[in-house]
Amino acid sequence: MDFSKLDGLIAAVIQDHITGRVLMVGFMNEEAFRNTVETGFATFYSRSRNKLWLKGETSGHRLVVKEIATDCDRDALLIKVEALGPGVCHEGYESCFFRKLDNGAWVESEARAYDPASVYGSNS
Amino acid sequence: MDFSKLDGLIAAVIQDHITGRVLMVGFMNEEAFRNTVETGFATFYSRSRNKLWLKGETSGHRLVVKEIATDCDRDALLIKVEALGPGVCHEGYESCFFRKLDNGAWVESEARAYDPASVYGSNS
Repeated sequence: MDFSKLDGLIAAVIQDHITGRVLMVGFMNEEAFRNTVETGFATFYSRSRNKLWLKGETSGHRLVVKEIATDCDRDALLIKVEALGPGVCHEGYESCFFRKLDNGAWVESEARAYDPASVYGSNS
Repeated sequence: MDFSKLDGLIAAVIQDHITGRVLMVGFMNEEAFRNTVETGFATFYSRSRNKLWLKGETSGHRLVVKEIATDCDRDALLIKVEALGPGVCHEGYESCFFRKLDNGAWVESEARAYDPASVYGSNS
């Protein structure tokens, strides 16, 4: 893998292994990628917190790795997962991609799958 | 959209609008995103060439935009497309994600969809 293009990070696309829905995009440094492969749970590098982030550490909504692919440039990953829990997005949606562009405006295109306050607490 | 996190760029995941297959990941700056929305053809920002890049400009394998979604942080795009031509990848494959991790080694998991030399010339 080529970690040189984005300050040590590569983009990781997370896709539901059965439905094919794209659930989120995260970033991994080399350590996050190694942890993902070794543990079988998707682990990212948080750019805002500057540390490794096991997805589901707080919520329990872990991503169980089913298949890992890389692209021609080896600077992106496509990871097919089984998503534990009702939703991947910390805002309560099944997928982080819950807004669609509709005549120039971003419109929420689905209902929440769970109440984020009950999972993350009311302040997060 | 928040273009501040990756030096003015956001990640754009390109997904076949019918099969759901993830075809490639590219990056867009604000101008590339605006061009994509206005023209209906996916346009990226090439990090290696430092300029806008209309996908399919050379090959004719353009990406016709069918739907655009953004994520909770507004720093990534999911673009569903109709891919013109036999393959999206400049190496001749239907998808850039043609290598899978198999017991610690990257293995090509599919045959080429076209001969890249006949499309791009033998030197590219």
